[in-house]
Formats: sequence, structure tokens, C-alpha cells
Amino acid sequence: MDSMIGSCAFAATAPRFASGKTPALGFADFTRNAAPSLLGSRTPRNGALSARTGKRFLPIRATAVKEARNRDPPAAVSPDCRKVMVIGGDGYCGWATALHLSKQGYEVAIVDSLVRRLFDEQLGTYTLTPIASIQERLKKWKEKSGKTIDLFVGDICEFQFLESCFKSFEPNAVVHFGEQRSAPYSMIDRSRAVYTQHNNIVGTINVLFAIKEFSPECHLVKLGTMGEYGTPNIDIEEGFITITHNGRTDTLPYPKQASSFYHLSKVHDSHNIAFTCKAWGVRATDLNQGVVYGTFTPETQEDEALINRLDYDAIFGTALNRFCVQAAIGHPLTVYGKGGQTRGYLDIRDTVRCVELAIANPAKLGEFRVFNQFTEQFSVNELAKLVTKAGEKLGIEVKTQSVPNPRVEAEEHYYNAKHTKLMELGLEPHFLSEGLLDSLLNVAIKYAARINTSLIMPDISWKKIGVTPRTLVSKQP
Amino acid sequence: MDSMIGSCAFAATAPRFASGKTPALGFADFTRNAAPSLLGSRTPRNGALSARTGKRFLPIRATAVKEARNRDPPAAVSPDCRKVMVIGGDGYCGWATALHLSKQGYEVAIVDSLVRRLFDEQLGTYTLTPIASIQERLKKWKEKSGKTIDLFVGDICEFQFLESCFKSFEPNAVVHFGEQRSAPYSMIDRSRAVYTQHNNIVGTINVLFAIKEFSPECHLVKLGTMGEYGTPNIDIEEGFITITHNGRTDTLPYPKQASSFYHLSKVHDSHNIAFTCKAWGVRATDLNQGVVYGTFTPETQEDEALINRLDYDAIFGTALNRFCVQAAIGHPLTVYGKGGQTRGYLDIRDTVRCVELAIANPAKLGEFRVFNQFTEQFSVNELAKLVTKAGEKLGIEVKTQSVPNPRVEAEEHYYNAKHTKLMELGLEPHFLSEGLLDSLLNVAIKYAARINTSLIMPDISWKKIGVTPRTLVSKQP
Repeated sequence: MDSMIGSCAFAATAPRFASGKTPALGFADFTRNAAPSLLGSRTPRNGALSARTGKRFLPIRATAVKEARNRDPPAAVSPDCRKVMVIGGDGYCGWATALHLSKQGYEVAIVDSLVRRLFDEQLGTYTLTPIASIQERLKKWKEKSGKTIDLFVGDICEFQFLESCFKSFEPNAVVHFGEQRSAPYSMIDRSRAVYTQHNNIVGTINVLFAIKEFSPECHLVKLGTMGEYGTPNIDIEEGFITITHNGRTDTLPYPKQASSFYHLSKVHDSHNIAFTCKAWGVRATDLNQGVVYGTFTPETQEDEALINRLDYDAIFGTALNRFCVQAAIGHPLTVYGKGGQTRGYLDIRDTVRCVELAIANPAKLGEFRVFNQFTEQFSVNELAKLVTKAGEKLGIEVKTQSVPNPRVEAEEHYYNAKHTKLMELGLEPHFLSEGLLDSLLNVAIKYAARINTSLIMPDISWKKIGVTPRTLVSKQP
Repeated sequence: MDSMIGSCAFAATAPRFASGKTPALGFADFTRNAAPSLLGSRTPRNGALSARTGKRFLPIRATAVKEARNRDPPAAVSPDCRKVMVIGGDGYCGWATALHLSKQGYEVAIVDSLVRRLFDEQLGTYTLTPIASIQERLKKWKEKSGKTIDLFVGDICEFQFLESCFKSFEPNAVVHFGEQRSAPYSMIDRSRAVYTQHNNIVGTINVLFAIKEFSPECHLVKLGTMGEYGTPNIDIEEGFITITHNGRTDTLPYPKQASSFYHLSKVHDSHNIAFTCKAWGVRATDLNQGVVYGTFTPETQEDEALINRLDYDAIFGTALNRFCVQAAIGHPLTVYGKGGQTRGYLDIRDTVRCVELAIANPAKLGEFRVFNQFTEQFSVNELAKLVTKAGEKLGIEVKTQSVPNPRVEAEEHYYNAKHTKLMELGLEPHFLSEGLLDSLLNVAIKYAARINTSLIMPDISWKKIGVTPRTLVSKQP
């Protein structure tokens, strides 16, 4: 992997094993003293549970212990990749990443329009975990860590704003999470489909131009999605495939078969970025990420004001997170169709580490690099079984319900996707464990009073999307 | 080719051979009486020639004779594909297509924002052939043919406008030329790059939604480009390639490697359209067109007010058309770089016929079909040689000049692209002939006084594109 070794390589590829210190546990610790038996007697209903305090809940030991290896003092960060701009740094993956990088010694700036919070207002959705404002978050982070994260609030589709961010911060790397990232959102109606593609494509083009004009050495770390590949009947490679055809051979971009306007927008981004690497010498890493689960990272656990969002609704919630919330409140797990849909998954603690590894081992100038960013494959049915089993251990009876699939996708298919490049750079995966499921279930139970069960069932259909603007009325719990 | 046989198949696959009638020649005929020797003594200069009348010019016999087979009375058009909306019907390919379809008995509506005419105003470019306004064009067409072409003037990126077009016209087929179609234009500056992608992607998404909502049986015939494929080191197939990889086989979208924001926009369109065919059952034909040359079709020759545009500038002009204009005024042919760039080419008379064949043999509901629409491959050097030879015959000394390549592209490469599907549907190509080159050279000579030589040399660089809006001042001839 010679091509992966750049000037920042040393800092983050050095392994950070557990140092033997007692893990510093964050605010989630206060749930530690509850006994599992307390949960056995609860009667799950469709609707709010009465649980409102932390006292009844299970310890999140598994999570806490596992984090030890990430809690060591950060290695020295190379000056060549020290300043990292995290676009979309107020979102689910972005916030966790910004804090992780800050903790590791990177100088971090968050660029975010905060529009994800507006989507919640407009759609009547909200994070299960009550998140603080970005201003409060950053103030608390400064208090807890002593570190400052710069904040630029604005829309990267407005180039003047992005220009001022680049000129002011002068990033060595840009981590670009700043896109509308929900497939169902992009399939609500025509205007959201257009918004998603416009926002994602134009924002990314602007980032590319900003790099070219103001920071040509800057490394773009772009979040793509495994969904760009679709479900081909052959192995999925990392970005490129060598094809022999009629006696000749070439290595070409892996064919894409995305299946929502959101996923398509990421395909478009990938093509645009690849072009600018070739034409302008931009250096870029496209992280084709799987489905992320979990909510805690060591940093977001340090204080309740640093808590990360956890979406459980059918628009923004992702498969495993949704299932844990459903299980916790006694809602049947909503398996779409046959449930044979298989995808790559990863723990959010691996998301932040993967991004760090990409930054610390930058692409070469002119290189367009693609990493498949996930650690394990599961079918939806497999996830449902794992959550059912984890629920049983907590005394929760978990049922599964087959729901008509709102999406257009194969429900039984071959799936084998490669994901070795990030491992080669030093990723040590947090494989999906009972501990993590315990932790997720307990978070869900803790905040169960906030859950609006009417947001759980999918009502956005890939086939029924229309041109009439759909104003989803906020549903009462 | 079972899948190609739809309800409209009979009408246009029936061959229309020459009927033995004397070809009806159009307004261009008045150039017939000039002798070649008149041209031998002209002294080509950088600048306007004094030729202003048609009398000095050569006959366009070759073209006229060749057209005979297309001038037969049109076959009956199937009612299932009778009403054709031509988006972008005021443009170079769109106008010729609209007239051809009208002549063949289709009921045609043109939808166009006319923004292509605005580009000319803004950039100081213009068509060599003086084109009439769209209103005059349609009035003249009515006079000459007795046929009415409806006109809807507006921007398909505004959905309400497009909706009203669909509801009013109720098309059976939509031919979508309505995109910013110049690679150099898309590389002028950031705002034009963004405009190109926004305009092309959003316009196409809107067309897809309009079809889904208002005319679900309507067949989308979308103009793509051979440039979507780039120049892979293996044969280029028509849209899809069967790949055997690690012992498994699948047929997947052919990998795309576009090399300008314009070409990329077409790649994005292709992915979006393929998705809606799968998700919504849209029927679509993606015509990956090669470089079009020529300007005359039988219909545009019927009256000077029906003349088609002919771009010779470095932004909108395409390779062969530009060379003929350059040769005609004694400007050296501008070969970019080594000149080994090989592409597919076709005569505009084949463009209109290919579109007709696609309409008359519609894709099935849910089918996404890709045809490579060109008839011959040439390298730039080969074109230069052909134009040089044709010039010699007219007594013009043609020189060739290697210009630093403003694009980022391979200048020597393998290129072998398949293009059999339209032939199987009945296309009888107009291969590039001396007659066509004669005709093009003579058009250029006829209008030489209009040529602004300062528009010939490329000054838009793929590498130098920047964020500062570039206001290209109209250059004085």
C-alpha cells in the first residue's frame, strides 16, 4: 500500500492499545446501578413508557470497557494534516468525528448550516437523545477537554461562505459529511429529491473548487456510501475493478447501481471528485461507508451536553439503531419485505477512527482513492435476530413484523463487499457485540419517554413519490 | 432484439428508399452555379473574407442527392408514439430533429428556454449560419410544410412550467436535448460548472417526475454522450458490460469516466434515469451520441429561415465543423495536443434518424436502454487530413497547427466503441464523404464574412478554471 503512505502517516497508524488505566467513563455511567430485573416487568406498549430517570437502567459496561484503547493520550499529529475542517460537523457522524479528531490533537473547525435540525422541525422528527445546540456543545467541549473547535455556520452551496471558511481556517484536510444523507428524505417528494441532488452535488463541487483555489494541497475526505454499488451479483471491490474484456484489460471505476436520489447523489459526487483529481491534481479519499450504528464515542460520553444524536424514525433512523429503539419500547421490529437485504455495517466508534486513519494517511496529490468503510455484513433478518436475542437477555420480548418494503431493492441477493484497505491502515474494528446492543437498548429505554411511536412505521414509498410538495405534519405521540 | 420491438415499431423501421423522384432541393441550391475555380484565387487571411453572396459558391450536390431517400412521403406514424415533445428543440440537434419528426408525420411540440441564444450574447459567440428566431422558424415551417409545431418557451428546471407543457401537450415521447451541452462552457468558471450540472440534472429529474405523474407511458429519449465512457483500454459496449469476476458473472452499467463537468452531468443523468426505470417503470432510451457534424438536413434546407445553426467557436463548435470553417477561411486547423484523440462521429442527418428510430421502437415500460449513436470513429488527426484533402480539391491550402490541449484527456489511446443497436433498428448511415466536406466547406465560405477569427483559438483551460466569475468580453472580429 505504498500509495497510501503520505506525510501524516506516522501519527495515527501507531497502534493505541489499552494502557492499563482505569477507563474514564462519561455521563452515561450514572445508569450503572440499575439491575436487569427491573426491566423484566415492564409492559411495552405503543407509546411512551413512564421511565424517565436514569436509575432503572443497565450499566453500559461493555461499551465503557471497550473504549479503553481509544482513551490513551493522542499520538502527535503531523503538522501536514493538523488542521481539519469537518463539514457537517453537527450531524450524527460529523459531531462524533469532530470531537474524536479534536481529542486526538487535530485542530478542528466545524462547518455546518445546521439544516439537519431544520429537517426535524419540518418533519416532526427528532433525535431520541436530547442534543444540545452546537454552541452549547462546543462550549462544553472546551470546558471538558480544554480544546477549542471553531464553528462556521453557513451553507457550502453558497460559495462566498465556503471561501471565507477556507481563507480563515486554511485546512490541511476537509472531511465532508455536509450532505443530505437520508434515502427516504430524498424520496419524500420531487422537491426533496431535487434538493438532495442539488445540495449534495453543488456543495461538493464548491468544496472541490475551494480546494483548487485556496488549499490545493488539502486532502478531501469525502463520505460516500456502500449504497453506491447497489447489490451486484459479483464481489464488490473498493472503488475500482479490473476487467478483462475481448482480450484487453483495464482497471475502471466499479459500476454503480444506486437506488434512491440520495444514493445517486453520492454516485454523482464520486464521479465529480474523480474527475478533479485527474484534471486538477486534487487528493481525495472517498469513504464508501456502510450503515452506522451506535451513538456513543468516548468523547460524546464525557458530558450530557456532548451526547450524539440517535435517530429512530423511519426517515433518518438506520436499520440497527431503529431496531434497538423498537425493541426497547416493545414495538415489533420493522423488517422491510423479506429481510434478506444485506449491507455492510460499522460502529460509530469505527467511523471516527476510519476518518482519522484517512486523514493521517492522505492520498497523494492527484490520487482518487476509495475505501469501503464497514466492518461486518448483516442481513436485516440477522440484525433482527441479534436484537431479539439481546432483548431476551434484558427480559424484553422482541417481536418482528414484516412490513411492505417502501423501497425498491432486492430482498434476497448475493453480497460480498471487500473492506481491507482501512484494516491495512490500522483499523481495529469494534465488531457488533452483545455489549453494544445492550448499550443501545439501554439508551433507548432511558429516553423512551421521548419516543413518538407514530414515527416508526415507514410511510415514504419509493414508488409513490410524487410532484406535489408533501408537508409531513408533525405527528402527535 | 425482442426488447426493442414496441407498439410503434412498424412505422419507422420500414425502409424508406429513394422513390425515383427528382430530389427537391432547398434554398441552398442557389449556390449551384459557382465554379470551383473561383475559389482558387482567394487569399485566405485571418479575418473576414469579402464573400457575401451565394453566387461564388459550389453546388452542394452530394448532399442533395444523398438526401433523396429521406425525402419520400413519410410512413404512417403509430398513434402510440405520435406526439413528440422535443425539449431543446431550438438548438443544433433539437431543431433539425423537430423538423424531421414533423415532416415524418409526428405531432411535434418544442419546449425550449432559448438560453442557448443567451449564451451567445453573453460570450460574444454566434452561429456561422444566420438563424431566424424560433417564432420565425416555426412560422416558415408552417408555410413550407403545412405543419404546425407547438412552442412552449420556458425553463424545465421550473417544474410548474414543465407540468403545464405535459398537461397541455400530453406527449407519447419526450426527446430531451434540453441541456447545456458544451464541455468548454462547463469549464469556463465555477459558476458555469455549477450551472451546467444543476441545469442538466434538475431538468432531467423534472422530466422524469413529469413522466411519472402525467404521462407514465411516455417514452423518454434522452441525449447522452459517448464522452460518458471516456477512453477505457477495453472495448466500449452499449451501456452495459457483462463482467465475470472471482467466478461470478453479472451484467452491469458500463463504467463511466467523463472528463468535464458537462460530460459528468450526462453520467449523472444516466444514473438517475436508470433508477427511475427500475423504481417507477419509466421507459427510457439513452442515446450516447458521438460528435455531430454537418448542418443541413432536408428540412432545414427548405428555406433560409429554417437554416440550422453552425458553431465554429472554441466553446460550442465541435471538431469537424470547426475544422471546415477554419479551412474555409485559411485558418490553420487547431489540433489539440497530439491529435490522437479518437471519438465516434455522425452526420446530423443520422442524428435525426436515430431519434426517430428510437421513438418508433420504444423501450418497454421499466426498460433502460442505451444506444451508442455514431457511425464512424476518427482521430482528430484523421479529421484534419480529410479536411485538408477536401480543401485541396477546392483549391484551398489547408494547414494544421498543434495547439496546447486545453482539455485533460488522453491524446493517444485505444478506442473501439460498439454501435450496432441503431443499425439493427434500421439506421442507414451517411458516412463521412467528400461530398459532405465539400458542402460544409462551402457553407463556411458562403458565410465567411460573418466569421470572427478571434473565437477560433481555445482559451478555456480544464486546468485553469477558477472560482472568479469569468465575463468573457465579446471579441471584435
